[in-house]
Amino acid sequence: MTQDRLSITLSALADPTRRAILARLASGEASVNELAEPFAMSLPAVSKHLKVLEKAGLISRGREAQWRPCKLEAGPLKDINAWLDNYRQFWEESFDRLDLYLQKLQKGDENDRKS
Amino acid sequence: MTQDRLSITLSALADPTRRAILARLASGEASVNELAEPFAMSLPAVSKHLKVLEKAGLISRGREAQWRPCKLEAGPLKDINAWLDNYRQFWEESFDRLDLYLQKLQKGDENDRKS
Repeated sequence: MTQDRLSITLSALADPTRRAILARLASGEASVNELAEPFAMSLPAVSKHLKVLEKAGLISRGREAQWRPCKLEAGPLKDINAWLDNYRQFWEESFDRLDLYLQKLQKGDENDRKS
Repeated sequence: MTQDRLSITLSALADPTRRAILARLASGEASVNELAEPFAMSLPAVSKHLKVLEKAGLISRGREAQWRPCKLEAGPLKDINAWLDNYRQFWEESFDRLDLYLQKLQKGDENDRKS
């Protein structure tokens, strides 16, 4: 239904196994067999996850017929980061407010000790 | 199926209408009626999207019985940002590589002019 790029990327990432696959690929290319091992998953199950990641442009597959190593592609993650930029001020602001609050607490503490 | 916090957040964001609602709320609190207007959506349809956003902790609702304004909550976005941190090096690296390539092109250009 929602076929815009960002929705496809976010939807592909909304799964802990797919995020774990990306985390594994962050340390280097891997074959489907190598990816399947730590997850104790069947090859078809891993292949299904890889197809979702590939469709979202989050991984690419080598062209060698036998091995076809999977490689992390960071472009779509960069797009999410760019989208998040619109909201960065909100969590930085709440951090600033917390910081102010802690400073206030600390000052109160100092005043307590002085009195 | 996947009930971890990050998956719930990413899944809630994987919809252009829900992201548009968040964008609207970034400029201030709004009632369901105010949110429904620009999207030409029925109130039940908007309410359904709001429930998904609220479940993900991306919005909160005021407690006033009549109005119940919706408010953006940036905490889950901050969590996505923290998760993205693991991958930041990948797109920054490709940017560095592009930068190197452009520098190389420019140098080639200069050498062409010199010769």
